[in-house]
Amino acid sequence: MFEPDQLPHILPEYYTRARDMMSLQNRAYFLAGAGDEATLLANETAFSCARIIPRPLRETGGGSTQISLLGQSHATPFMVAPFAYHRLLDPLGETATARGAQAQSIKTVVSAQSSVDLAQIRSAAASCDWFQLYWMGSRERTLELAEIALAAGYTVLVLTIDAPVQGVRDREIEAGFQLPPDVRAVNLSAFPATRFTPLIEGQSFVFDHIAHVLPNWRDVDWLMQSVAAPVLLKGILHPDDAARAASVGAAGVIVSNHGGRVLDRAPATLEMLLEVIKRVGSEYPVLMDGGIRRGVDIFIALALGAKAVLIGRPVVCGLCVAGELGVSHVLRLLRDELEIAMLLSGCASINDIHADMVHLKL
Amino acid sequence: MFEPDQLPHILPEYYTRARDMMSLQNRAYFLAGAGDEATLLANETAFSCARIIPRPLRETGGGSTQISLLGQSHATPFMVAPFAYHRLLDPLGETATARGAQAQSIKTVVSAQSSVDLAQIRSAAASCDWFQLYWMGSRERTLELAEIALAAGYTVLVLTIDAPVQGVRDREIEAGFQLPPDVRAVNLSAFPATRFTPLIEGQSFVFDHIAHVLPNWRDVDWLMQSVAAPVLLKGILHPDDAARAASVGAAGVIVSNHGGRVLDRAPATLEMLLEVIKRVGSEYPVLMDGGIRRGVDIFIALALGAKAVLIGRPVVCGLCVAGELGVSHVLRLLRDELEIAMLLSGCASINDIHADMVHLKL
Amino acid sequence: MFEPDQLPHILPEYYTRARDMMSLQNRAYFLAGAGDEATLLANETAFSCARIIPRPLRETGGGSTQISLLGQSHATPFMVAPFAYHRLLDPLGETATARGAQAQSIKTVVSAQSSVDLAQIRSAAASCDWFQLYWMGSRERTLELAEIALAAGYTVLVLTIDAPVQGVRDREIEAGFQLPPDVRAVNLSAFPATRFTPLIEGQSFVFDHIAHVLPNWRDVDWLMQSVAAPVLLKGILHPDDAARAASVGAAGVIVSNHGGRVLDRAPATLEMLLEVIKRVGSEYPVLMDGGIRRGVDIFIALALGAKAVLIGRPVVCGLCVAGELGVSHVLRLLRDELEIAMLLSGCASINDIHADMVHLKL
Amino acid sequence: MFEPDQLPHILPEYYTRARDMMSLQNRAYFLAGAGDEATLLANETAFSCARIIPRPLRETGGGSTQISLLGQSHATPFMVAPFAYHRLLDPLGETATARGAQAQSIKTVVSAQSSVDLAQIRSAAASCDWFQLYWMGSRERTLELAEIALAAGYTVLVLTIDAPVQGVRDREIEAGFQLPPDVRAVNLSAFPATRFTPLIEGQSFVFDHIAHVLPNWRDVDWLMQSVAAPVLLKGILHPDDAARAASVGAAGVIVSNHGGRVLDRAPATLEMLLEVIKRVGSEYPVLMDGGIRRGVDIFIALALGAKAVLIGRPVVCGLCVAGELGVSHVLRLLRDELEIAMLLSGCASINDIHADMVHLKL
Repeated sequence: MFEPDQLPHILPEYYTRARDMMSLQNRAYFLAGAGDEATLLANETAFSCARIIPRPLRETGGGSTQISLLGQSHATPFMVAPFAYHRLLDPLGETATARGAQAQSIKTVVSAQSSVDLAQIRSAAASCDWFQLYWMGSRERTLELAEIALAAGYTVLVLTIDAPVQGVRDREIEAGFQLPPDVRAVNLSAFPATRFTPLIEGQSFVFDHIAHVLPNWRDVDWLMQSVAAPVLLKGILHPDDAARAASVGAAGVIVSNHGGRVLDRAPATLEMLLEVIKRVGSEYPVLMDGGIRRGVDIFIALALGAKAVLIGRPVVCGLCVAGELGVSHVLRLLRDELEIAMLLSGCASINDIHADMVHLKL
Repeated sequence: MFEPDQLPHILPEYYTRARDMMSLQNRAYFLAGAGDEATLLANETAFSCARIIPRPLRETGGGSTQISLLGQSHATPFMVAPFAYHRLLDPLGETATARGAQAQSIKTVVSAQSSVDLAQIRSAAASCDWFQLYWMGSRERTLELAEIALAAGYTVLVLTIDAPVQGVRDREIEAGFQLPPDVRAVNLSAFPATRFTPLIEGQSFVFDHIAHVLPNWRDVDWLMQSVAAPVLLKGILHPDDAARAASVGAAGVIVSNHGGRVLDRAPATLEMLLEVIKRVGSEYPVLMDGGIRRGVDIFIALALGAKAVLIGRPVVCGLCVAGELGVSHVLRLLRDELEIAMLLSGCASINDIHADMVHLKL
Repeated sequence: MFEPDQLPHILPEYYTRARDMMSLQNRAYFLAGAGDEATLLANETAFSCARIIPRPLRETGGGSTQISLLGQSHATPFMVAPFAYHRLLDPLGETATARGAQAQSIKTVVSAQSSVDLAQIRSAAASCDWFQLYWMGSRERTLELAEIALAAGYTVLVLTIDAPVQGVRDREIEAGFQLPPDVRAVNLSAFPATRFTPLIEGQSFVFDHIAHVLPNWRDVDWLMQSVAAPVLLKGILHPDDAARAASVGAAGVIVSNHGGRVLDRAPATLEMLLEVIKRVGSEYPVLMDGGIRRGVDIFIALALGAKAVLIGRPVVCGLCVAGELGVSHVLRLLRDELEIAMLLSGCASINDIHADMVHLKL
Repeated sequence: MFEPDQLPHILPEYYTRARDMMSLQNRAYFLAGAGDEATLLANETAFSCARIIPRPLRETGGGSTQISLLGQSHATPFMVAPFAYHRLLDPLGETATARGAQAQSIKTVVSAQSSVDLAQIRSAAASCDWFQLYWMGSRERTLELAEIALAAGYTVLVLTIDAPVQGVRDREIEAGFQLPPDVRAVNLSAFPATRFTPLIEGQSFVFDHIAHVLPNWRDVDWLMQSVAAPVLLKGILHPDDAARAASVGAAGVIVSNHGGRVLDRAPATLEMLLEVIKRVGSEYPVLMDGGIRRGVDIFIALALGAKAVLIGRPVVCGLCVAGELGVSHVLRLLRDELEIAMLLSGCASINDIHADMVHLKL
């Protein structure tokens, strides 16, 4: 196992060391973006364009990063984002991740495509009670997966809607990425693959196969009514879609472009966060992910209206570099940086973080 | 011949491999731009500044990329752009290109300067029925060439007006580009070169020779009336010129700067597309080319008002890398990427692609 | 000792030579910024975006760079910024710095964390009569330090408020920076370190230890009333804080982000200078530091409203390269460059430098 | 001597070859800029931000680049800019330059600091009848130099006012630039150097020596009245100074920042050209120099209101690479490029080049 003094001391070293340690295939899968990676870069660049105005001499004694979200108390305004196949990086896979987060009292959103059984993860980490769903090709199958998750003790569901196809994952194609035999989406094994009738001349795989097994807004509406738990929609970018999510009963939305891994040229999430908040107001729970690499990025997202953020690649890098301990350390470093940013800007609580503390020129 | 598994798997690899495979001379001719290549770069950069807002959960089942243009049905909203001298890259030249496009039900605009006889190309590929004209120095000669093309079965003509001179092709001059003996503009062999009287002291080759054999708007007007086929004007950038093209009876315009190969410092075509559409409205057929390297670029051009786009360098790269098969594969990849972009933005048909789906900050 | 002809002849060579001469640790401490160094870079970039419009043919004979500030006469509108631990770079430490500045009739703001006794520095350089304070954890201790400084002959105090914590100093952590045994903040030795009660589960070092020993506005107000000398607040960025500083009796403010060494993503000081001046008007003494590398930068800051500027890293580089002589030479070069900029823009005095002489596009 | 086929074929090759051929000292003197070369770069960047909208199908037969300026006819709207010490690059110095320009019917503005006698240059090249003056420290001496030039046959004078001091020429200092014994400002040999009284404590070389021998607006006014020839002021950037130049009787102004060689951070000349034209209107003769490297740059400057432009570094590069022939060839290439730009934008004469043909986003 890792000794603490072998760990990186700073966040960027986790990122560079993970990049070096990963195989070409894993690097393409976990770190690369779709297409020319314009959206991946845009996510990060948007944060780097923001400026935080420090406010010294304000009282912050006894402050905290705690938030309340959907009736739950969270120690920090950030969670671990759902990311598939953690066993590619660590033999304990999602169990290691969830435990590392738990050690910091931070919640994990477990991916439907986790490489460890969802119930096993749930029981390994008490605070890990959010589960991410993909549409399973039909209402019944999707509901079935949801109910398996709820039965295992998950209490909040996140339906990811922005990755109905793989996207143009050129970096994975180049690297020849494929799952090794011992890593699978174990939660989905019981669900047989969709069988399509062969395409005829002039038909398209995208429009004549894939498109027929995708959900529409009525399906989502139905799911909201059918599941006995709050459901957030993840992968919203357009303000109108955020408003519609609210109207069909979504417990919240997560502004996301799937980490730039699906539609290259999609806008930066930080940019769309602003437009979404403008549309749905500041009361409705809007979360976001994409491009967060530093504690100040979390501060910025919160200032611009996010109720919480999800952390993907930094956690993946922590897992790669040092397993459970690495996950825990990366999350701790993010929290330390966030606390320092709060102190320097005179914010004793997350609610004190306001839009006028951040200048964003995009 | 090429085995499919030797082909590049992704579009950028076609571009880099072609660049490596081409001779210095061919690279200068096919891939370089005029002057300092500012316009070549601007064409591409304009697209990379555009952002597509995904719209999940909209129904796209049974969708298609089909369009109707000038009364014809096209399987895709993109065609192969006219580009001279394909035999520099493949012994079968434009025949290979046209067949490769035909295999994807995609139309080719055959160049007047093709290195294979226009009739031969026409008969090799059923869907290849657009022909590009240059002004031949006089009305009569231009009409003669047009009539040869129509007699060979071409049904739509494209008059290129933006390359009356070579431009400042420094990269070709540096590379010492010249046609090898076995590659010629075979369609033009029957037309003797224009003979100029010698220049006298103080006269200029540009103003006193070249300028006298160029067409003006009245010539174009005359041609429109004289040819028994729809004629589009290619090489329009100024909105006033687009309006004038419509007024003299052009069947449409193609916003183009000749791929940045004539006037370096001409604006990006995507930028001028917006202004042209503003001027002539959304009904008049406005096409464009220049800078398209990805399926998302096609989506962007269509969203901003183009009825269709022309694909030049990507096809040239496909031809260079793998002949007919390479052309076909490049076009297939572009189509796949376009379909994915449509699915992700919830567009079941080309008509569903609207301006509000794209943010463009230039 | 250095012979004059071994000295760099131009300012940038001081910067590059110092970078090369410093140990990795010192480079991280003196030259690096916090986090990803975005704010460090932003400070410099803001100046490089400014343009000075020359005004030839105006009379400047007999002109000078002299200013009057807080009732004192200064030979130049710039001073040496407070920077800790000069003995890391030169055995004579702050004495060398203050003497080098004195040789140019330029004032030094001595750091509370100087590695030479404050009284010793004061007596070594007649013009060196500004002293910088940190908050010492309580009103009494802070006042005690102030009174020690005043007793030693300092006449103006600068309370630095923007570095209540270390910030995310990744570059120092990477380099393993720590003070060698023979370099200490000698002025603070008499003040015992604050003792904290151990943190309990769920408490945070930042909010439950550090935050409790930081000053607030009431503390600053109290200090202003209690000290028999003018006190400036250093580390103001927000216009409201500048206004509040004025209202509690601060003799002036220094717009600063601690050279980008505390909160990475804080805005460039030049940018905030504009907003601060807009808020407090042009009469109130507003100084600034951060990003000044050239004489034209000084001109720009003055044109945009600063009454004077502080010079940090350039002086540090001078000290590193050639000790006292290097400090003196760097300051002389800055003054020469400033005089040339004044001559070229037709300004015979600092009061002639107006905002309309500078275009700033940020 | 050079054979034509040894010459570069394209403009950029003149620039790169000259850079390689020059000694470090000459490169610093002729090609570098002051300070950090921000203004040098800004001059070029401003042009590269401009876009020319082509206008095909307009009649340009019999067109020409001829202009009328101050009652003279010029074959082209560009002249050779005054640049000192051509004998550093070619043994025939300014004679070679003037003859090379003459071969293209292009005028040279001879520098007061030419390394060949002004009368000798004048007699070597019939069209070379503009002479550039520096202020000689007093009215009488300046007038004396002007009258020497007029007596030698020069008919237009250009008083350079933007280089009263050397500027911060760090690149020259680094390179140790100094004139070799056989290269001098021969026209100025008869004028003894100004003797200054020694500076006393607290005085400044800039304000107490240099500033006392510089001209002011009254001096310039006096010169205008005293010289029997039109005088242009070179080195104007501020619109108010352009207006004042007109009011004191200057025959025109040349918007210039001395090629970025004096005040680094001065704005790009193209940017200030726009403001100057806005102020003095389109009738008053406004010329410009700085940053022109291509024929399209000339087109852009003319479109934005310049009546003519001066070409400095490109000519210097031509002289360095191939002496008189190189100068001639560089000017010919610029003219060819300008003619092509005119043809492509449908301009048969310089008067046809209008502001609406150029988009400039700075």
